[in-house]
Amino acid sequence: MNANDSAATALESHIRGTIPLADAMDLKLRRYTGDLLEMTAPLAPNVNDKGCAFGGSMASLLTLAGWGLIELGLRAEGQDCDIYVGNSELRYQEPVWGELRGIARFVESDALARLAHALRSRGKGHIDVVCEIVGKQRPATLLTARFFARLRGK
Amino acid sequence: MNANDSAATALESHIRGTIPLADAMDLKLRRYTGDLLEMTAPLAPNVNDKGCAFGGSMASLLTLAGWGLIELGLRAEGQDCDIYVGNSELRYQEPVWGELRGIARFVESDALARLAHALRSRGKGHIDVVCEIVGKQRPATLLTARFFARLRGK
Repeated sequence: MNANDSAATALESHIRGTIPLADAMDLKLRRYTGDLLEMTAPLAPNVNDKGCAFGGSMASLLTLAGWGLIELGLRAEGQDCDIYVGNSELRYQEPVWGELRGIARFVESDALARLAHALRSRGKGHIDVVCEIVGKQRPATLLTARFFARLRGK
Repeated sequence: MNANDSAATALESHIRGTIPLADAMDLKLRRYTGDLLEMTAPLAPNVNDKGCAFGGSMASLLTLAGWGLIELGLRAEGQDCDIYVGNSELRYQEPVWGELRGIARFVESDALARLAHALRSRGKGHIDVVCEIVGKQRPATLLTARFFARLRGK
């Protein structure tokens, strides 16, 4: 298991141990590469009254995937931060009839380095992520979100 | 119990019986007046790793409150529709350290009448709602969302 894999395993345990809804969703952290984080959840606990994925489950999964991508990136840089979502936009483009598979990426390739710099110089900063629920032809659901980070104790 | 109250009670049962995540959240439909719908959820099943309300729980509660407001309004008009969220914007303005209390309203006072007219003439339409998690000085979280409705069988 490489450093990314063991950090991802620890983060999945942390999320499921401290956020009851993530545990109710049966959320799993499947892949973390530094630039990309993938989370999945089975349909059964995340279904709506129409038999497809509940919008709130997709919003939760995508927000956690974005948060996790930043959390793991900053931890790898040795920065101990509180990271929280500031605002987000969701587009529900097509229904999801099976497993929810969400992928988070940074909007800009140097975003994490710039946030790390802002944290070192000012103790706080923000970062934009784009997360999608994988669909058939296009993203089934798309979230763009701005997260804020602050060094702990500042 | 008036007609609004009994419709609201039936909708709460429907939501909790068909959307497992709403049941895990311990979601309750507290008030429905025709123009306004209020849902609540206790903090414990909706907490995050910082001890305040999880963003995904707030997104879920607000989306369900908006959906419920439209569902009950169209049912009262005798229209049998599928209603689904198209897009939404969320602003997380301050953390919530206790019960989540969400209130949904239509953006425009004649919105429901206009949607009902669109459904009668074209079988489909859209409607905008604004939903907030009540905060101390201002809404703690604000959701604006566009929902789409389609007559069943169209």
